[in-house]
Amino acid sequence: MLTELKREAYEANMELPAHGLVHLNFGNASALDSGRAVMAIKPSGVPYDRLRAADMVLVDLEGKRVEGRLRPSSDAPTHVVLYRGFARARGIVHTHSPWATVWAQAEREIPLLGTTHADLSARPIPLTRPLTESEVEEDYEGATGRALVEAISEHDSCALVRGHGPFAWGASPAAAVEAAVTLEQVARLALLTTLLAPDGPPLADAIRRKHFERKHGPHAYYGQ
Amino acid sequence: MLTELKREAYEANMELPAHGLVHLNFGNASALDSGRAVMAIKPSGVPYDRLRAADMVLVDLEGKRVEGRLRPSSDAPTHVVLYRGFARARGIVHTHSPWATVWAQAEREIPLLGTTHADLSARPIPLTRPLTESEVEEDYEGATGRALVEAISEHDSCALVRGHGPFAWGASPAAAVEAAVTLEQVARLALLTTLLAPDGPPLADAIRRKHFERKHGPHAYYGQ
Amino acid sequence: MLTELKREAYEANMELPAHGLVHLNFGNASALDSGRAVMAIKPSGVPYDRLRAADMVLVDLEGKRVEGRLRPSSDAPTHVVLYRGFARARGIVHTHSPWATVWAQAEREIPLLGTTHADLSARPIPLTRPLTESEVEEDYEGATGRALVEAISEHDSCALVRGHGPFAWGASPAAAVEAAVTLEQVARLALLTTLLAPDGPPLADAIRRKHFERKHGPHAYYGQ
Amino acid sequence: MLTELKREAYEANMELPAHGLVHLNFGNASALDSGRAVMAIKPSGVPYDRLRAADMVLVDLEGKRVEGRLRPSSDAPTHVVLYRGFARARGIVHTHSPWATVWAQAEREIPLLGTTHADLSARPIPLTRPLTESEVEEDYEGATGRALVEAISEHDSCALVRGHGPFAWGASPAAAVEAAVTLEQVARLALLTTLLAPDGPPLADAIRRKHFERKHGPHAYYGQ
Repeated sequence: MLTELKREAYEANMELPAHGLVHLNFGNASALDSGRAVMAIKPSGVPYDRLRAADMVLVDLEGKRVEGRLRPSSDAPTHVVLYRGFARARGIVHTHSPWATVWAQAEREIPLLGTTHADLSARPIPLTRPLTESEVEEDYEGATGRALVEAISEHDSCALVRGHGPFAWGASPAAAVEAAVTLEQVARLALLTTLLAPDGPPLADAIRRKHFERKHGPHAYYGQ
Repeated sequence: MLTELKREAYEANMELPAHGLVHLNFGNASALDSGRAVMAIKPSGVPYDRLRAADMVLVDLEGKRVEGRLRPSSDAPTHVVLYRGFARARGIVHTHSPWATVWAQAEREIPLLGTTHADLSARPIPLTRPLTESEVEEDYEGATGRALVEAISEHDSCALVRGHGPFAWGASPAAAVEAAVTLEQVARLALLTTLLAPDGPPLADAIRRKHFERKHGPHAYYGQ
Repeated sequence: MLTELKREAYEANMELPAHGLVHLNFGNASALDSGRAVMAIKPSGVPYDRLRAADMVLVDLEGKRVEGRLRPSSDAPTHVVLYRGFARARGIVHTHSPWATVWAQAEREIPLLGTTHADLSARPIPLTRPLTESEVEEDYEGATGRALVEAISEHDSCALVRGHGPFAWGASPAAAVEAAVTLEQVARLALLTTLLAPDGPPLADAIRRKHFERKHGPHAYYGQ
Repeated sequence: MLTELKREAYEANMELPAHGLVHLNFGNASALDSGRAVMAIKPSGVPYDRLRAADMVLVDLEGKRVEGRLRPSSDAPTHVVLYRGFARARGIVHTHSPWATVWAQAEREIPLLGTTHADLSARPIPLTRPLTESEVEEDYEGATGRALVEAISEHDSCALVRGHGPFAWGASPAAAVEAAVTLEQVARLALLTTLLAPDGPPLADAIRRKHFERKHGPHAYYGQ
């Protein structure tokens, strides 16, 4: 069932160690079939070098496992809430990629300091609010998803979960991986820039708008 | 004798350069047969690219070499003391992996700043106390093991030896390697987080407990 | 048409990911046929792993596409202005290579702190002035080229575009790649040196001159 | 003539990019035949991927080329002075390896902060004094060698040339490469330790002596 969806989720998962975004098994990717309201997601705690497409677990948007021998990623409820709250996402990636995770651990959004960032997003990379103690105890992974939905706006393709690490998404699992890779570069540039020039200015406003618009705006002229 | 134990120790040793945890021959791994109270450990000063499973040296828990042409790692007495003092360890890994070693050289425990750390341990990564001058002169490697045993508690799987570098252990040599790899990631995240936000807060307490418990607690739901 | 020029541009482009200077498709290289006043440049937004020599787009020095099915890099007008303003360039490379980009984002020229830098250039790596808002809105890529031409002098082979990233050039596309690779090393050394010794002195003047002259001066004795 | 010496020098040179110590052609290694007072050294400015053992240039300890079509490394006079001033060296390596070069550019010796350093040397890694302007103008490379000889003492196997980068040496070209690789690790650990704990203490004296002595002292018990 949904062999193609599982294959897409599998391939997105396998891109994560290939791009250096995950070590061991810290990370997971999912693919959504929006018509059926079912996602395929990595099983929990399975090392990438033993993962097969057939291991992907199917979970519906109520969070119920609908197929698969293995337990889904423990972060599956976060994916579910994010798919429900952000209509255009068809793929989601979560990693502990080091540079983005450092910003999450420092509990700081990533300031917009250069054109690499502006090519990805026209604003800082958002950071989720702190969860309350009862949110953590009662429904930690769901509450994480709700905090993400609160933090993001229409054009975002990634965000940081406070104290934890990045999530990225897109119109396909491959687009989600691309956003995660770009975010990691942006996070690295911003961190080293901040160490070099702690009180440096953000990118000039006109250039910020120009770069985002030439790639993502109605009159975009980047790409084919 | 104990061919399987030597193979396990050999494979754990070979994982260390593969994960980028050792350069040249700075590091060693051992495997314990707890029934016979004998460990297999890397020979001293032998480059990884010439190492063979048959080169592993068998040492008993009195520190006596019981088989092997080659001298054991000069850190063998530390492994012995750690196996005796920490009953559930069946594998031990010692490296000079760069990010963890920086914390050891700075003589600071690693603060618990994010969920990657909480997935490994519910508390800071401990640091051994300073050795006295006579401890260093009389039985340096044994004293290092005793300082490790003093510093750690039941749920720890790794610690830093002050001025020196990390040790990690687990229920198997492979589990010890996994703890060493994860520690290195945690050390890197914590160092960069500390440079970005020197006075940043530790991870929220509820999330710290949640992550450790969902992976290692009695009601763990991470993994299969 | 101009198959050899396209091949040279293609090969320079493919060197960029091989040297770790670009991730995904952030970067572009071009090759100039100065007799015909035509350059071959990477098409916009095409991933490196799908790029073929035949995909290179021919653009004249008025900025007009003269051959090619695909749109040229959105930075093509910057290349055009730079070729027109800097007569000896036959190849140009633009990347978002991380260490050089950090200096561009910090809006700082790279100070001359060691002999690795002096082997490349006898002065700091220049930084372009801020663009005005109307320059950004009316002709962003052309204005970027003009700001580069203003910032550089005769012996320069690279510069930083403020808020954006590095450009490098040379007497051939391969020489431009070599300048880009060296710049990245120089930028990395300078950044880490600045973190270690924020008020450290620049390289001694006599050594600065000596290194540049022994490699690039009239009595150079470096190389064959 | 001296085919074996050239092969040794060639192999040491090829280890430098393999260990990540050189980019492009920034670096050189030599091998000494002390009986004949002749060294084999890399030719100047030849890329590593085109280098052959037969390209090594033979230079005597007066600095005269005695065989070879190609010009020797422009740093050859530094090697000559170092071989003459430091009797036990049979191999010398010079690189611009990034972490060690940062200390050279910051014009700071590398403080002894941990056991990885103490396994290599019982004291800080020395830094050469500033050269005078006339030294630079009249005999730059020879003066660099003399400053190295002044800075080092009997047990050293590496040093930093102020503003420039590291030299390392040993009883064979392979031992020189090993010293260069270890120095780069030591430099990296020391730099990150200094960023984390700017006023941190040096390694405890007893441990410093213990580590150096167990590896290099008269009663060494490290290795086979």
